[in-house]
Amino acid sequence: MLTARETIVPTFAGGTLDRADQVRVNPDKLRAAMMNPRAKLLKLDGLNPVFDDVGDLAWGAAYEASPDNDLLLLGIEEDTPFFAELNGAGDAGPLANRALWQTLGNLPAEQAAIYATARSLVDWHARHKFCAQCGKPTQSRKGGWARLCDKENDGCGAEHFPRTDPVAIMLSECEGKVLLGRQPRFPPKSFSALAGFLEPGESIEGCVKRELFEEAGIKVRDVRYVASQPWPFPSSLMIACTSVTDDPTLTLDEEEIEEAAWFSLDEVKGAMNGEPDALFVAPPPFAIARNLLQHWLDGKA
Amino acid sequence: MLTARETIVPTFAGGTLDRADQVRVNPDKLRAAMMNPRAKLLKLDGLNPVFDDVGDLAWGAAYEASPDNDLLLLGIEEDTPFFAELNGAGDAGPLANRALWQTLGNLPAEQAAIYATARSLVDWHARHKFCAQCGKPTQSRKGGWARLCDKENDGCGAEHFPRTDPVAIMLSECEGKVLLGRQPRFPPKSFSALAGFLEPGESIEGCVKRELFEEAGIKVRDVRYVASQPWPFPSSLMIACTSVTDDPTLTLDEEEIEEAAWFSLDEVKGAMNGEPDALFVAPPPFAIARNLLQHWLDGKA
Ligand SMILES: [Zn+2]
Ligand SMILES: [Zn+2]
Repeated sequence: MLTARETIVPTFAGGTLDRADQVRVNPDKLRAAMMNPRAKLLKLDGLNPVFDDVGDLAWGAAYEASPDNDLLLLGIEEDTPFFAELNGAGDAGPLANRALWQTLGNLPAEQAAIYATARSLVDWHARHKFCAQCGKPTQSRKGGWARLCDKENDGCGAEHFPRTDPVAIMLSECEGKVLLGRQPRFPPKSFSALAGFLEPGESIEGCVKRELFEEAGIKVRDVRYVASQPWPFPSSLMIACTSVTDDPTLTLDEEEIEEAAWFSLDEVKGAMNGEPDALFVAPPPFAIARNLLQHWLDGKA
Repeated sequence: MLTARETIVPTFAGGTLDRADQVRVNPDKLRAAMMNPRAKLLKLDGLNPVFDDVGDLAWGAAYEASPDNDLLLLGIEEDTPFFAELNGAGDAGPLANRALWQTLGNLPAEQAAIYATARSLVDWHARHKFCAQCGKPTQSRKGGWARLCDKENDGCGAEHFPRTDPVAIMLSECEGKVLLGRQPRFPPKSFSALAGFLEPGESIEGCVKRELFEEAGIKVRDVRYVASQPWPFPSSLMIACTSVTDDPTLTLDEEEIEEAAWFSLDEVKGAMNGEPDALFVAPPPFAIARNLLQHWLDGKA
């Protein structure tokens, strides 16, 4: 297999906006950014993206934000601050709307990353209004990059930061074939890489081994990192890896995996090319599982 | 530079205990594991490890646990369930005690991973007793792997899972030298790899680029993953990477970095070997920064 190449940039991973962390923590600079007449406001429909006529992310002016909502500083570029409104929308699920997915998938990389950042943070604020340590209400701080349980409001003083939950997503190879599976909720014939959340006390490599053993009953070695992707539904970091196993015998966890199988190079190529007689439907372009499968194919070329 | 080798196993990363996830979610199996007379209980002094006469982790019997405390299922091996007590100890800081660190560093890899898992989870429960969504008290569920805001107790029904916060820790190379820095809180002469938390909407590679630009003012390319390490102080996942830059000019963020410099191969070797005239003190053995520096040296050999 190939080693990881930085040229793999999954959807949402190509952020280039200067996040201006020194402004977040400086109340004077933050206020100046908010009052800047050029300051832009990302348009959102709840948590969904809003597009302009040419299919880019739509922006308004920061002064149009509701005075009831806090602002999230997305970053600053050429003296123009970019904000999103903490509009209270929260939802742990993915985008339901296929048309939105399609437009999102066509965005330039840096715009997709801006949407991912905004969506994760708006959702996080909506679902973290209270202090997990003492139960009191918390308030947005640092331009939306923290919430404080303020002692002046009878709180405990704890500062809370947005979550980013690492998920390992992995292939395993045996005798030149690659393991893919399908969850009960997948569309018909769709197969993808197996995946699972990293747990405390676990490395990325340890998680890959555990998940493949739990879900498919295989013992793998030679875990290799390939690429990573922020996945804002709601706040995952997808970490794509390959691995190798010597025994292809599968024992499925049928709660998690409805079906899994080893696919040959030609079978994967057929699916990735969308050939009419393909054995399965490959993951969509915005899924890092597709980058991972393409990486596996490239390594065989 | 070398590509990542799975043979790099940082401290805390070598867990092999079967986490028995199917038992966590099955109340009957979980009860049977708790009532199993062979079931073991990890001894903890608050969040600190307790060692037996030979320097291994000390264990008691599960039935010795306080009836006031919930139990955390660490895993099951050869029909022996392993638990820790959710003893209410919480603390975001690292181990203060050097002697504990030393004994911890000498543990077999799988024991260090068990301690890391227990410490992260005990701390998480202590600091997450309330629902971030509605502020009501939550209760431990799934053998300590979740907390529920129970609708039967007037809660909102949200299920909360332990946090794992990804942190990128990185080297950069320029003209054959490697960048290390020191934070104001470091012991005298100590230098290490720069590091920072991943943010929502960011890939691992994006975080490495942002942190090195924010903290050291350098623009890097060719980010490569090397290894990962769970770091239970309180719940980080350290993700070690290398990178390359063409311009060694440093502009330090002096809030974060007191001093930073490019070190040559011989200077790094001298520090790693603890030579008396070494230019700096290298990171300690349990830090993934040391694995990362050793990986860099190995790539130059
Ligand atoms: Zn509080
Ligand atoms: Zn609740």
